[in-house]
Amino acid sequence: MTNLQSPTANLPLLLALDFGGTKHTAAVIAAGERRWRAHRRVFSPADADARYDLETMCSLARELLAGAQPAAIGVSFGGPVDTTTGTVRLSHHVPGWENTPLRETLEAEFGAPASVDNDANVAALGEHRFGAGRGCDSLLYVTVSTGVGGGWILNGQPWRGAESIAGEIGHTVVDPNGPVCLCGKRGCVERLASGRYIAQRAREWLRTQPDRGQVLRALAGDAPETITAQLVSRAAAQGDDLAWEALEVAAWALGVGIGNAANLMNPERFILGGGVTKAGERWWQVVRRVARETALPEVHFEVVPAALGDDAPLWGAVALAEDRLRAF
Amino acid sequence: MTNLQSPTANLPLLLALDFGGTKHTAAVIAAGERRWRAHRRVFSPADADARYDLETMCSLARELLAGAQPAAIGVSFGGPVDTTTGTVRLSHHVPGWENTPLRETLEAEFGAPASVDNDANVAALGEHRFGAGRGCDSLLYVTVSTGVGGGWILNGQPWRGAESIAGEIGHTVVDPNGPVCLCGKRGCVERLASGRYIAQRAREWLRTQPDRGQVLRALAGDAPETITAQLVSRAAAQGDDLAWEALEVAAWALGVGIGNAANLMNPERFILGGGVTKAGERWWQVVRRVARETALPEVHFEVVPAALGDDAPLWGAVALAEDRLRAF
Repeated sequence: MTNLQSPTANLPLLLALDFGGTKHTAAVIAAGERRWRAHRRVFSPADADARYDLETMCSLARELLAGAQPAAIGVSFGGPVDTTTGTVRLSHHVPGWENTPLRETLEAEFGAPASVDNDANVAALGEHRFGAGRGCDSLLYVTVSTGVGGGWILNGQPWRGAESIAGEIGHTVVDPNGPVCLCGKRGCVERLASGRYIAQRAREWLRTQPDRGQVLRALAGDAPETITAQLVSRAAAQGDDLAWEALEVAAWALGVGIGNAANLMNPERFILGGGVTKAGERWWQVVRRVARETALPEVHFEVVPAALGDDAPLWGAVALAEDRLRAF
Repeated sequence: MTNLQSPTANLPLLLALDFGGTKHTAAVIAAGERRWRAHRRVFSPADADARYDLETMCSLARELLAGAQPAAIGVSFGGPVDTTTGTVRLSHHVPGWENTPLRETLEAEFGAPASVDNDANVAALGEHRFGAGRGCDSLLYVTVSTGVGGGWILNGQPWRGAESIAGEIGHTVVDPNGPVCLCGKRGCVERLASGRYIAQRAREWLRTQPDRGQVLRALAGDAPETITAQLVSRAAAQGDDLAWEALEVAAWALGVGIGNAANLMNPERFILGGGVTKAGERWWQVVRRVARETALPEVHFEVVPAALGDDAPLWGAVALAEDRLRAF
């Protein structure tokens, strides 16, 4: 416990919580420090509900705090949140979260002011304060994973929109004649660019184009139904044209979405995180080229990889807690 | 000169200037009042250059001020402006405006602090402060005229973007297989929804569909090349199907652009101004329906007509001057 003897031992402690869909992370840090005092991640069982997840997180936090009192709490939640009250609207993954007063519950439990926001906004804040968005006044953070979500920083602050739903670049339409998305519309960025649909597209093409995709077929072995976007990327990197084309459509759609957002908002930077961004340099080239072609020539911006990886929401939760401490 | 005897005679005077492409307006108002003390609009000759327009505007302003000293000046300019310095980058209509230090020139001329911004941002501010955006914290003002432009209000303040180019909803792509826009891309909102292209589309269809568009043909007489979006709207209102379909494409494209912007930014309101918004109730119905269908179900917003008409930039200039006065 060398920390307790350090000159910074009396700094106020911040509790940062990240409620993901299937994994939860809690961490303790001292205000102003950049190293965790304590950090732990746990995975939820498939049948977990809101009550289970909340109790798990609270006991995890108590364990990490080891009797110490946090000065403020920042929370990233994987679903829509009313940020003014800190109430979770619902979770798309875990049942029972409907209208849960998460901020109130945590404030009562830990006796400290808390701030709660959805994961895309919090990750954007994390990258802005501690990652690839440092020194940048306006940015859109885009997570390209199973789905496609986003969070804005404008004037150095999160822009959440009138109902805390801003940032839904995944459900902007880029091809009105494209395939139907889960949301019911055709040709959303998410329907074309997300990991789920990269994999689905590759599987379909393997069925309908029996002479192509030999590398991907070999990698998938006897189980084409298990093909993931990661496997598609691997096959593309090994020269599989079908796999590359499945990725290219995704990169094109994301590029149009980014270029449109650049024309609308003129931010300095787009920060891309999530598993699909590991798809390789060719994917990045297409995203950047199409975004550049879609934006007006006089609109300038950078498209850069996220720096904090899976920890972006947790670092954003630290930023929320720091801001809460200042406001208190 | 009853104003001079009113109890408000000693209120500071604000000078509001609107440099349009072909018409210029100057007005004088007392801070806090909502009636012009003086107001005049002049039209520029076709061969006018920046120097001519600037001298015309200055003498117009001096005439309206009649020897009085303005306390602050607000300026709307029809072209890109560096708002931090008040320097006009260029005009797309009038030669000679490149890198003109308009704020500096006006401050020297009238001995008062000035604030300069482009017309879309200023019109957005005008509607927000005095028109259809009152009491609304976040909005996109969209002008649907020869072109399609826009200006944001977020957190009650103009959001101009990193390079003062935000709001370009006209150059967001809504149909990647659509016709080529002046900007070089396919299927921009402007290419499908602006007055220029509504007229062009109707003219093309009259040529290629000889059995249709009888009402529009009759209205155009012997000169189909003179058909405007206004004439197309008139024909549509009189039951001409071809004319209505030319408008419907426009309304669809604008609706997708608005729905996409709603998903990205989640503003409370979209305010639509410009000549094309006079196209009739059916046009409004399609814009609203498509915007609603394009946005996620949980994203709510209103789509309403602008309240200030052609005077939106001038009222926005008043707001700029009021803010400048407060900051000074």
